[in-house]
Amino acid sequence: MKPLGSLIPLAEAKTLVDANVRPIERVETVPLISLGHRILVRDVRSTIDVPPYNRSAMDGYAVKAQDTFQAGKFQPVELDCVGVVNAGDVPTKKVKKGTCIQISTGAMIPEGADAVVMVENTERSGEKVQVFRSIPPGANVSKQGEDIRKDSIVLREGELLTPSKIGVLAALGFKEAEVYSMPRVSVIPTGKEVAEVGRELRKGQVFDINSHTLSSILLENGCVPVLHPIVEDTTEALTDAFGEESRSDMIVLSGGSSAGERDVLEGVVSKLGKVIFHGVQIKPGKPTIFGLIGSTPVFGMPGYPTACLTNGYVFLQPAARKMARLPPKGDTVQMVPMAKKYAADLGRHQFLTVKIKGGEAHVVFKESGTITSIANADGWIEIPPNVDIVEKGMMVEVHLF
Amino acid sequence: MKPLGSLIPLAEAKTLVDANVRPIERVETVPLISLGHRILVRDVRSTIDVPPYNRSAMDGYAVKAQDTFQAGKFQPVELDCVGVVNAGDVPTKKVKKGTCIQISTGAMIPEGADAVVMVENTERSGEKVQVFRSIPPGANVSKQGEDIRKDSIVLREGELLTPSKIGVLAALGFKEAEVYSMPRVSVIPTGKEVAEVGRELRKGQVFDINSHTLSSILLENGCVPVLHPIVEDTTEALTDAFGEESRSDMIVLSGGSSAGERDVLEGVVSKLGKVIFHGVQIKPGKPTIFGLIGSTPVFGMPGYPTACLTNGYVFLQPAARKMARLPPKGDTVQMVPMAKKYAADLGRHQFLTVKIKGGEAHVVFKESGTITSIANADGWIEIPPNVDIVEKGMMVEVHLF
Repeated sequence: MKPLGSLIPLAEAKTLVDANVRPIERVETVPLISLGHRILVRDVRSTIDVPPYNRSAMDGYAVKAQDTFQAGKFQPVELDCVGVVNAGDVPTKKVKKGTCIQISTGAMIPEGADAVVMVENTERSGEKVQVFRSIPPGANVSKQGEDIRKDSIVLREGELLTPSKIGVLAALGFKEAEVYSMPRVSVIPTGKEVAEVGRELRKGQVFDINSHTLSSILLENGCVPVLHPIVEDTTEALTDAFGEESRSDMIVLSGGSSAGERDVLEGVVSKLGKVIFHGVQIKPGKPTIFGLIGSTPVFGMPGYPTACLTNGYVFLQPAARKMARLPPKGDTVQMVPMAKKYAADLGRHQFLTVKIKGGEAHVVFKESGTITSIANADGWIEIPPNVDIVEKGMMVEVHLF
Repeated sequence: MKPLGSLIPLAEAKTLVDANVRPIERVETVPLISLGHRILVRDVRSTIDVPPYNRSAMDGYAVKAQDTFQAGKFQPVELDCVGVVNAGDVPTKKVKKGTCIQISTGAMIPEGADAVVMVENTERSGEKVQVFRSIPPGANVSKQGEDIRKDSIVLREGELLTPSKIGVLAALGFKEAEVYSMPRVSVIPTGKEVAEVGRELRKGQVFDINSHTLSSILLENGCVPVLHPIVEDTTEALTDAFGEESRSDMIVLSGGSSAGERDVLEGVVSKLGKVIFHGVQIKPGKPTIFGLIGSTPVFGMPGYPTACLTNGYVFLQPAARKMARLPPKGDTVQMVPMAKKYAADLGRHQFLTVKIKGGEAHVVFKESGTITSIANADGWIEIPPNVDIVEKGMMVEVHLF
């Protein structure tokens, strides 16, 4: 356990979080409509041939290809049409030499036929069909199993389900699939001064902001946030809250991680489990706590809304995605010049919220307590610990929210 | 109304869709936790000052700044500590000259104090506090209204709600917000040969794929898909289905748009409303229908799964986002060289599914009926109508799924 006096570098903190967060093992069966962004538990094997029968790829006439070999634009071949087969029908007649059967797209190829001549290449009068094109055997026929062969593996375990993969499951007739559960993450707001939204604010109170920003970030990254009622920063209250949320896969607290006397979170985490770090060389976000209770990762986020939000993106988002088995989020980044010179703090990795206006990055960060510095921001820039001045016009990488 | 014989170019089709889809006007009130990706209906004005009172930004001692002016690293000033105020408390004592009150982060500044000296810059013994730093008035105090002033506009109508904007709403104590409703889009699978997933496949039947891929695309783009039972491609059945789904904001049918005799969709749409186009110069996806019934846009998608899927991205996704008032989707695009030469069709804008392997684009498109050509694909490339050969090694833009 490190005392808050000795801060660890950002990279080390990120590595420690990653090392202590494990992908979820729990699985569940989910209907097709809810499978987007979920992760497949096992290989999916086809139980059928797709298409399940030889079928027509066009509207036209099922023929023996050989009957058309003499046909051409100016010398049609005439065939007797002996029936109709529509999609969904089981053909009752056969195609014999000199005959054809009218067929629609998707319909089963009748026995005796080996090709379909497109309706555009024919002319019909009564039961006589003139064919103006010669076609080879197999023309406009989708063969049974051509798309997916029975017993072949069509989707792999660990695959991220997108609309097209969901289409593959539907093609095989699956109405659901087994996927990894979305991690359940408890969000516990702490602090006697924190009031629930929707209530009257008493003197000395502020509304709970952080549990809502953290919950939104969790939802966007494959987790199910479970919002705990506000608890006081006392050993008893926090211990009780951990007890109540012990079924969760991860626990995130907002507030209760500064150096103050009432900040007992670190003590409670040490008692129930272990503190991995407390204090990171970043600004804002310095008093961040990370620990484990059993195998459950616990984050103690700083109480300042901006600090809590950037921490949410820097620490919680990668942890949530790893636990949910989602691929790491490719940050959307934009390179723009700084609008003004900015004097940074040497020795701390700094996150600075900025607004992009007129193609330049304007710093909107005021102090870590201000919500407007996030409301007006398009994203944030990072300033490494060894940089003290960011000059006007210098290109910076804006991580878009 | 254009006959299918005369196809319109892709760009014209996209323009016609855009011109006939209107942003949704319906609104609803939604709790904070579900506000992600939703669009605010009206400006949000702050009903309170944030912070609602002068508060401490640090753990330390509330002081009269003037009392510290003589303090320094080697010449502390000594003050009498006369009380404690924790976050959430209403201070009961005043700070007078020569005294201080212990204060925690977020707590109200007691009367008489105008600054907070950080605990790190003090040393305490009993009721005596030694201050080792001189601080100016206002130091470590967040002023009432400094962050958000009462009555100021903090969020604008039309704003897309992200975790940080949700945090702003929470800061003001709102537990919900009025946002535009998610458009309700009916998805109607058509065709006698189409069977519902999860059932036994009868001879001559295939499983319904398209309504699942289309529903997934709709869900990802801010709409609520409503899956209609499978209907036959008859005038009566389609007319009934339109009647049942008349409360929807948009209607999408899969299948029923080819040139075949049974494809009566166009007739039904003309009767109930109007057909805007039928037939686009693209491959796959040529027989796409678009029309209006009243002011409700109606898409008739091709029955082939790949055609239906690419159409879902090319036509439905932008329409869904416009209706949902979401910003157009920035396609994620990757530039890679073609792995092999590909001979395209002159005169038609072609969508070709590809897999990216070894840094090259491999064509996986087999024919528009094959689901595997999507299952194995990472995205698609577009080949304009005036290109007939795409050479090996040529750089192509892959639109990632």
